[in-house]
Amino acid sequence: MKRRPFLQTLCGAGLASAFASAQTASEKAPAKKLGWALVGLGSLSTHQIAPALLKTRNAKLTGLVSGSPDKTEKWSKQYSIDAAHIYSYERFDEIIKDPAIDVVYIVLPNSMHKEYVIRAAKAGKHVFCEKPMANDAEECREMIAACKEAGKLLGIGYRCQFVPHHVEAVRLAKEKVFGQVKHIQANFGFQSGDPKQWRLRKALAGGGAMMDVGVYALQSCRMLMGEEPTEVSAIETKTDPVKFAEVDETVNWQMKFPSGRMAQCCTTYLFNGYNDFTAVCERGKFSLGPAYSYSGLKGTCSGGKNYLDMPDVDHFQLEMEAFSQAILDGKEFHPSGEEGLRDMLVVDAIYRSIQSGKLEKVAPV
Amino acid sequence: MKRRPFLQTLCGAGLASAFASAQTASEKAPAKKLGWALVGLGSLSTHQIAPALLKTRNAKLTGLVSGSPDKTEKWSKQYSIDAAHIYSYERFDEIIKDPAIDVVYIVLPNSMHKEYVIRAAKAGKHVFCEKPMANDAEECREMIAACKEAGKLLGIGYRCQFVPHHVEAVRLAKEKVFGQVKHIQANFGFQSGDPKQWRLRKALAGGGAMMDVGVYALQSCRMLMGEEPTEVSAIETKTDPVKFAEVDETVNWQMKFPSGRMAQCCTTYLFNGYNDFTAVCERGKFSLGPAYSYSGLKGTCSGGKNYLDMPDVDHFQLEMEAFSQAILDGKEFHPSGEEGLRDMLVVDAIYRSIQSGKLEKVAPV
Repeated sequence: MKRRPFLQTLCGAGLASAFASAQTASEKAPAKKLGWALVGLGSLSTHQIAPALLKTRNAKLTGLVSGSPDKTEKWSKQYSIDAAHIYSYERFDEIIKDPAIDVVYIVLPNSMHKEYVIRAAKAGKHVFCEKPMANDAEECREMIAACKEAGKLLGIGYRCQFVPHHVEAVRLAKEKVFGQVKHIQANFGFQSGDPKQWRLRKALAGGGAMMDVGVYALQSCRMLMGEEPTEVSAIETKTDPVKFAEVDETVNWQMKFPSGRMAQCCTTYLFNGYNDFTAVCERGKFSLGPAYSYSGLKGTCSGGKNYLDMPDVDHFQLEMEAFSQAILDGKEFHPSGEEGLRDMLVVDAIYRSIQSGKLEKVAPV
Repeated sequence: MKRRPFLQTLCGAGLASAFASAQTASEKAPAKKLGWALVGLGSLSTHQIAPALLKTRNAKLTGLVSGSPDKTEKWSKQYSIDAAHIYSYERFDEIIKDPAIDVVYIVLPNSMHKEYVIRAAKAGKHVFCEKPMANDAEECREMIAACKEAGKLLGIGYRCQFVPHHVEAVRLAKEKVFGQVKHIQANFGFQSGDPKQWRLRKALAGGGAMMDVGVYALQSCRMLMGEEPTEVSAIETKTDPVKFAEVDETVNWQMKFPSGRMAQCCTTYLFNGYNDFTAVCERGKFSLGPAYSYSGLKGTCSGGKNYLDMPDVDHFQLEMEAFSQAILDGKEFHPSGEEGLRDMLVVDAIYRSIQSGKLEKVAPV
């Protein structure tokens, strides 16, 4: 367990700059593996994140935080995690004394993000937090401040920012391969099942479809426009007011950007079918659909060449490798807490617009 | 020129009911051909409507109304129209004495629709009017009243309502072939060329992209939802405020329907690329794109069967045959003036929302 002192020395001595990039570093030598602890052992951790950590070249699963002894027992066997690195939520702060854990990945219901990000930072750990970052922009600011004060990196689990299809789509937009992007429609939703799940409880989820999957559509618009929306108008409906008594069921919103360009989005917990974006440009268009699934993304482009025809990758592997590499290199990480804050500023304006029935300005960072 | 007295007798005697339907009538015998006069000999009349009238089984071009002697001279030769059936705008009302003209098709700039529909009705002619029906709902009411008072049919040129792709799409929605339609996105726009064209002059066009092509997207949403929107929120931008000084350039709007379902639309004069609708349903989705072109419509459906894979038809031929047949059969015609009014009530609310920055209720019919 000499990794952290070694890394601190490495970064402290400025040697991190010797790594030209994560990619180059990876090619040169097998990377050091940072220890990651997962906080919350639900479906996402079970089926996506833990399996991905078996593949990451610079990260490995070294700790577990859960309120369920059944889960930790099963996990400890499956991933060979010693009991010394397994924590309940009550004992979570003791990770400060655990050198096997460099990074804490918060995979809890949305409303718990703030508390656990701040506790993780105070325990001296770098923090990776699932989207949506928090319940609102104010919480994001507190989380950013806590990590800054602790001198630790804060990354947000916007996995799509590491997926080649999305990276290429942003390039198509930025380099104006089809001319300037003129308008975007982006949508993500699904039919939520179990009416008892935490996603439908406001106290846990903070909000509904908008918070959970709407942020993917919002991310696409912000990334592809390359600028921040300044105004939004949003409408909400609940066609199933019993099941969705506490959280939003279906939200439609439209955004104006400083350039005058606009985008429209739909998100829902009521039905399947929306999982896409389309960017209409001066000389053609490109789209991705499915756009936000873990695999099987499918792109289409105007004209002969499908720039978005790419093989599947493990989204979680990529995001965790990137965050680990930023730590190893002593560099900034993007998407940082500020990226999460920018999204939540828009989400806050969307919720305000639903309430007011008016066009609402997005608050400045 | 004995057609009208004959038809009047036919309809007056109630014999029109002998025709079970337009289709049956058409199969039984060559239909009588009603005489149509075109008011306005611009691009649409030249390239679409007049050629279509050469194909209509129950209608033929028998009159011309234009302010341009050059045009009428050329047209009279091309379509063998005698000078007796050619009118200037000033002499338009004299068509009351012209038995060769049963129907007047108003193909003028939008702002002239009201005046010419009313004058045509007062001249005792059935009136077919291009979309958008008028500048606002109030004008629509006046036009409907004038035609009712004259005892003449008023039809609106919503050609898509006769196109098999759209008819089939409405069936897919109505019969819930993919389950209930849950959400619709529909868009239509194009990059407008000549900055001097009438479409960019508010005095002639009444409005911009919203009036001209936005109504196609609106029509799709209303038809596929099978109910009328009750609330809209809309935003507008002008990225080229010089060219679009007088009319709207790009409008985004979203609508709520009584069932709680929603739809979103984009219309523009700034860029090409939007010409589609997608209906997301409980068990799949269907879409059309191009959806509103004169030919080459292309549909896609979830699952194996593409219900929307159909051959091209002449949209203008179909709408004029349907209107003619309704007259011959002494029946009501749909889409009537009330259909145009319903659209304009929504358009009025959209423009109000742009101005107020608020969610606006659609006024009742």
